[in-house]
Amino acid sequence: MELNNHFLDLKDSYLFSTVARKVREYQASHPGVKVYKLSIGDVTLPLAPVVIEAMHKAVDEMGKKETFRGYGPELGYDFLREKIQAYYKRLPVDLDLDEIIVSDGAKSDLGNILDIMSPNNKVLIPDPVYPAYVDVNIMAGRKIDTCAGNAENGFKPMPNDSYKADVIYICSPNNPTGAVYTKDELKAWVDYANKQNALIIFDAAYEAFVQDKSLPHSIFEIEGARTCALEICSFSKTAGFTGTRCGYTIVPKELKFNGISANALWNRRQSTKFNGTPYIIQRAAEAVFTDEGQKQIQANLEYYRENARIIKNALVEKGIYCVGGENSPYIWLKCPNGMKSWEFFDKLLNEKGVVGTPGAGFGENGEGFFRLTAFGDRETTIEAVKRITEIL
Amino acid sequence: MELNNHFLDLKDSYLFSTVARKVREYQASHPGVKVYKLSIGDVTLPLAPVVIEAMHKAVDEMGKKETFRGYGPELGYDFLREKIQAYYKRLPVDLDLDEIIVSDGAKSDLGNILDIMSPNNKVLIPDPVYPAYVDVNIMAGRKIDTCAGNAENGFKPMPNDSYKADVIYICSPNNPTGAVYTKDELKAWVDYANKQNALIIFDAAYEAFVQDKSLPHSIFEIEGARTCALEICSFSKTAGFTGTRCGYTIVPKELKFNGISANALWNRRQSTKFNGTPYIIQRAAEAVFTDEGQKQIQANLEYYRENARIIKNALVEKGIYCVGGENSPYIWLKCPNGMKSWEFFDKLLNEKGVVGTPGAGFGENGEGFFRLTAFGDRETTIEAVKRITEIL
Repeated sequence: MELNNHFLDLKDSYLFSTVARKVREYQASHPGVKVYKLSIGDVTLPLAPVVIEAMHKAVDEMGKKETFRGYGPELGYDFLREKIQAYYKRLPVDLDLDEIIVSDGAKSDLGNILDIMSPNNKVLIPDPVYPAYVDVNIMAGRKIDTCAGNAENGFKPMPNDSYKADVIYICSPNNPTGAVYTKDELKAWVDYANKQNALIIFDAAYEAFVQDKSLPHSIFEIEGARTCALEICSFSKTAGFTGTRCGYTIVPKELKFNGISANALWNRRQSTKFNGTPYIIQRAAEAVFTDEGQKQIQANLEYYRENARIIKNALVEKGIYCVGGENSPYIWLKCPNGMKSWEFFDKLLNEKGVVGTPGAGFGENGEGFFRLTAFGDRETTIEAVKRITEIL
Repeated sequence: MELNNHFLDLKDSYLFSTVARKVREYQASHPGVKVYKLSIGDVTLPLAPVVIEAMHKAVDEMGKKETFRGYGPELGYDFLREKIQAYYKRLPVDLDLDEIIVSDGAKSDLGNILDIMSPNNKVLIPDPVYPAYVDVNIMAGRKIDTCAGNAENGFKPMPNDSYKADVIYICSPNNPTGAVYTKDELKAWVDYANKQNALIIFDAAYEAFVQDKSLPHSIFEIEGARTCALEICSFSKTAGFTGTRCGYTIVPKELKFNGISANALWNRRQSTKFNGTPYIIQRAAEAVFTDEGQKQIQANLEYYRENARIIKNALVEKGIYCVGGENSPYIWLKCPNGMKSWEFFDKLLNEKGVVGTPGAGFGENGEGFFRLTAFGDRETTIEAVKRITEIL
């Protein structure tokens, strides 16, 4: 019985556990002192009333023989796929229903989608980045190259003929930097991918935060993307589904791997290794797209956006370099006075009781930077920002 | 961009689609004639009242800021793990909480668990069998050997030194045959696996149907299993969760792959590629284990068991060879008069309007056999059995 040896190549990520340990230690040595957290990547507002109502209704259906639902379609109920299809039409992006594959969340899809690809594929991942992109590829033994995000490119690395990549990850709006690619910039990546016969895995988990009408929400707003990209999205940040679990992946029919339909491959993978998202949860997701649902969701998003504005404005006023915060829940700032990420983290925690996330935890190009998030509540955000600016 | 070439080795399974097509054709040529289906593997009774109540309560919690839950623990909430731990104690099997890993269902775990194993491992799968065992291994390019279930061994193949296997699948009570291994028989497999340094993947999805007190519900009732087995289980058949989606996998701490803890590997896989089962669904699963929940669940199981008895008794009375049906929702019978599986299917459908599942669809050793299920409603079952016996 042999293990998958590639698991031995995984590095333990100490980022969030070290943050948690340092906060615990601070609290132990400062009993009764409040800590202000702008470090969380999780939402804090409850689910929208229409979502709650839809779930109560679906729960009742599951309790009666006439309306009970057993196994559903593995790739998602049409009632939800149709709503997602209509949601994309606003961009406008036209999708066939069977190009939309519903799942239990973006994290599952980001990991599982690799099942349909060769382990020999070379992968290009931006740095700094959401750590799971790296780990899921290490698990399969893929070679990974990184493209550097930095102040020069506004944390939006661009294609370069020196890269040799079969699979390219793009996350826009980006976690952790909050940077958002323009249509022209994405077009350059799409053209590059088509030329190189590479695949773009586009992570659109934060698309709902995009407000600037000129910025793309989806890779499929870009001409040529249907032959080189798939897109993974989620209700987690859009509608507060982090503990409710629903996402979807768009795999266009024109996308081929060695002439084989990627849509058919993903369909086969999911029908074999997945049994669909709970009926009740799909009804919850459907409710997000009603008129009332959209209003309620936007109100929640606006709350987080206002937090982001409060953080960003204070930093800009102090002359701190930062990206994100306008079309993203994340604000990525340069630590003041040339401090390193963890140095600034310690100073902020020990002098001001404020917690953020050290940029160095997201890759070597994150060193010297720091992530703040807009997912806290208003009072925490205001007080934390006041305290941060005192030491800038 | 290269695909995972092993997907090209997958065969399309025409079993259920062919059954569906033949039923459609029959109905088109026999308008208004009722068809009696004993072919379905899905449950038909609604969720138990305690489960419905628990979900309503959890939905309400998700709608209020004070009780809202965001990201949960990837491996499951302790409130549910503790209930599963107590459930195993009745056997008695002692488990540590972190040996119990909650998921969205057995089908996901059966596929995903292979991520932690080398693609070089050789796999031993019984035939006839649930088709997904084969497909998930083909997708990873593993070599597959089969061990034959047949009338001589009561559809319970036993270990044999000619097998060279690193991974062994056992499903008991079995799908499709309904056969259940005794403790002594499982002990032989456990001893064999320990001797060969092989892993047993024990699929316990139908354990709740076991009534005979001498028969095992879990591989961990067998001495020595903790060093060679993991167990995958589900609420789908136990509590009608086929559309609600919850399962769990038990990975004992003593289980090692090349000296590495399989529990730690699975933990790492799930924390990286999965983000937990919905909070609401975990509360639903928790309710199954309350006293009231167990009473309600047993009433539903008893309904299906009575269906199974009705089917089995009629077949036995006619002198038809069959297994299953007493500790399993499936009855596996030899087609009468030496008929082949599809021949009997056609005869039953065309002459009597009754639908079952041809055994040949579950592997070459299923040829000449036929599966009937107890998941229909009472009236359908009684009428179908009456019609079947007319042509035996």
